Amino acid sequence: MLEPELQNLCETLATQAQTASRALVTASTQQKDAWLLASAEAIERQRDPIRAANDTDVSAARRTDMSAANIDRLTLTPARLRAMAEGLRQVAALPDPIGEIREDAVRPNGLRVQKIGVPLGVIFFLYESRPNVTVDAGGLCVKAGNAVILRGGKEATHSNRALHAILQRELATAGLPTDAVQLVPTLDRAAVGLLLKMDDRIDLVIPRGGESLIRRVAAEATMPVLKHYQGNCHVYVDERADLSMAERIILNGKCQRPGVCNATESLLVHAAIAGEFLPKLVASLRTAGVEIRGCPQTVERIPEATLATDADYAAEFLGLILSVKVVTGLPEALEHIRRFGSKHTDAIVTADAATAREFVAKVDSAAVVVNASTRFNDGFEIGLGAEIGISTDKFHARGPCGLRELTSYKYILTGNGQIRV
Amino acid sequence: MLEPELQNLCETLATQAQTASRALVTASTQQKDAWLLASAEAIERQRDPIRAANDTDVSAARRTDMSAANIDRLTLTPARLRAMAEGLRQVAALPDPIGEIREDAVRPNGLRVQKIGVPLGVIFFLYESRPNVTVDAGGLCVKAGNAVILRGGKEATHSNRALHAILQRELATAGLPTDAVQLVPTLDRAAVGLLLKMDDRIDLVIPRGGESLIRRVAAEATMPVLKHYQGNCHVYVDERADLSMAERIILNGKCQRPGVCNATESLLVHAAIAGEFLPKLVASLRTAGVEIRGCPQTVERIPEATLATDADYAAEFLGLILSVKVVTGLPEALEHIRRFGSKHTDAIVTADAATAREFVAKVDSAAVVVNASTRFNDGFEIGLGAEIGISTDKFHARGPCGLRELTSYKYILTGNGQIRV
Repeated sequence: MLEPELQNLCETLATQAQTASRALVTASTQQKDAWLLASAEAIERQRDPIRAANDTDVSAARRTDMSAANIDRLTLTPARLRAMAEGLRQVAALPDPIGEIREDAVRPNGLRVQKIGVPLGVIFFLYESRPNVTVDAGGLCVKAGNAVILRGGKEATHSNRALHAILQRELATAGLPTDAVQLVPTLDRAAVGLLLKMDDRIDLVIPRGGESLIRRVAAEATMPVLKHYQGNCHVYVDERADLSMAERIILNGKCQRPGVCNATESLLVHAAIAGEFLPKLVASLRTAGVEIRGCPQTVERIPEATLATDADYAAEFLGLILSVKVVTGLPEALEHIRRFGSKHTDAIVTADAATAREFVAKVDSAAVVVNASTRFNDGFEIGLGAEIGISTDKFHARGPCGLRELTSYKYILTGNGQIRV
Repeated sequence: MLEPELQNLCETLATQAQTASRALVTASTQQKDAWLLASAEAIERQRDPIRAANDTDVSAARRTDMSAANIDRLTLTPARLRAMAEGLRQVAALPDPIGEIREDAVRPNGLRVQKIGVPLGVIFFLYESRPNVTVDAGGLCVKAGNAVILRGGKEATHSNRALHAILQRELATAGLPTDAVQLVPTLDRAAVGLLLKMDDRIDLVIPRGGESLIRRVAAEATMPVLKHYQGNCHVYVDERADLSMAERIILNGKCQRPGVCNATESLLVHAAIAGEFLPKLVASLRTAGVEIRGCPQTVERIPEATLATDADYAAEFLGLILSVKVVTGLPEALEHIRRFGSKHTDAIVTADAATAREFVAKVDSAAVVVNASTRFNDGFEIGLGAEIGISTDKFHARGPCGLRELTSYKYILTGNGQIRV
């Protein structure tokens, strides 16, 4: 596409989104929930055309060098279609954060001060080639009163278009603006750069996917960015840990779903229990197919382990590799996490309450976990109902971001003639 | 200063602030409050050297073209010194937002999910030549667990240094890191540009002062910015308003302190009551010395009024000028506010609850006021105890920002061996 044409296209997208977002501010909860439920039904009803569109994408992807894991994520199985519909129904069941009264007080002069939830406005959402995310993100953004501009991975184009068409049709039926959910209609990557400069019409960008994409978005965007770069999640096993609990927690964190951001990537073991714990743990990890990269003390105890480099300690493997370090105690563990961690999720296994408290206080991560798997840093698991992503920043929302994290608030001051004296 | 020297100086400032902020994370409430109270006492005890330093600044300012209003702001009177000390004591009395448990729930699997307040980290605060702000900002930032780098207006240099020396001395006495409150030691403006690029060590910048300074900071900063550009605050007087209440609210909003961001700048009057209301209102405004710039209908009724341009409707006068427009009803008032407003504070005077509700729902401003003065959009007035500024953005905090708005949170997940299934 020629540059002026592309500029026009992006401006139209952003302007339409802004107009839609203004109408959404006063859309009723009923209207939004009716849309969510009708979309869920339509997705189930139209599973055949959706799967046909998805087949086109999957067949094309098989002819490229896409990994088996990514082809799996691209594929809409019957179970995934059901899960998508179910996800929309769950969002419909969540309380509406818009209009929600978050604070309500009367000042000594009789002025009533209320703080109520309002939408952010327009959200630009970039994501990987997982067509179910089109539906999840659309549902969450609109329930929180925001218009969303979706830009999915190019490999999922046909699937995304089929799903997006359903969401738009149902928006019209529910009496909501159809531009509440728009899909960037071109694959031209320059469109992303243009949209990232439109901070007069786009209020927030949420990039998901590889670290390099996220870094590019954060560098180029003129509006706020909700993001995390990496999840290099640690488990520290203290000398006073229940070692069989520690083993279960590490196996779960590493192996239950190794490709996600809250998977465990690095293990720190107190020297006092390393001799007893490591050989037993590694036997289980070996069975699960996990490769160990460790410090000299680890390698001494585990002959099959290779020596870890600093790059290994900094790595988010997203696969069956675990970096291991034997430490002299909590201070060294904290120092290691500060140096190599990504402020996402870090866990301690200990039976000692004081050690747990110190770990919790001193680890500066979005979620700090005591005696449980790092995999629990997730919107659904902590009770948000659903999530659009996880933030490792401290400004605005931190950790898993659900409906409420996609909103802002305003103050309503109601009086009967009060003036300042 | 040579560029490499300046770069070194700024890096040292930022690194020292970061180190101090890490120690502040675990500082006790007691320690922070002891510092606030001791600083208050020291300011009162050392009023003579402080006033001597301030005299140097004021004498120098008198030899420049600084306005009388600004010289007044620069001057530390005995009453202002007392108010500064009193402000610190009030912050000491406020609850500590750090460690505060904001949510606490147990999931069906027994995992306890807590959300607790944590500091943002390092704040870079730029402000006008008002030495009392040095003390207010230092107190708020440190109580919220943050290290702060202060950069006040150059005209207040001697006053700021004297006050900063007291705050630092008392930090040492309280066992807190003295780098928790630092003053940029050079007047070289290039230092600001360098600090705005240090997002690896500075977590937030808060610029206060003229719009051009704030725009420059927002454009250059690589970290988040808490800000508002303007306060072009409207009052809309509905046809069903108590007109004597409306008069009091407008006089208060315009005249009580015309130079501040929540002063009323623009009046919208329903056509049905304009004939009755405007002449009476303008008689009072005339007594108060207020100049009127109005639409043709206003000028018809008020012969002394001049015709308002679009620039007048967009202006934040910060002085005794009021723009006035007669409108056909709520839709035109809303449209005018959308076009010319700054999303800061807008008020309606009406006795009709439905009209008030519609105004509140459709005006997209940080504070929407019903039947009270726009001057109430203020941290102290709404019950925050104190404020560091007012935000018109929707990301992170909106409206008046007090202690809690200077913090973030983290999740603490506590289990007894839970794993994901």
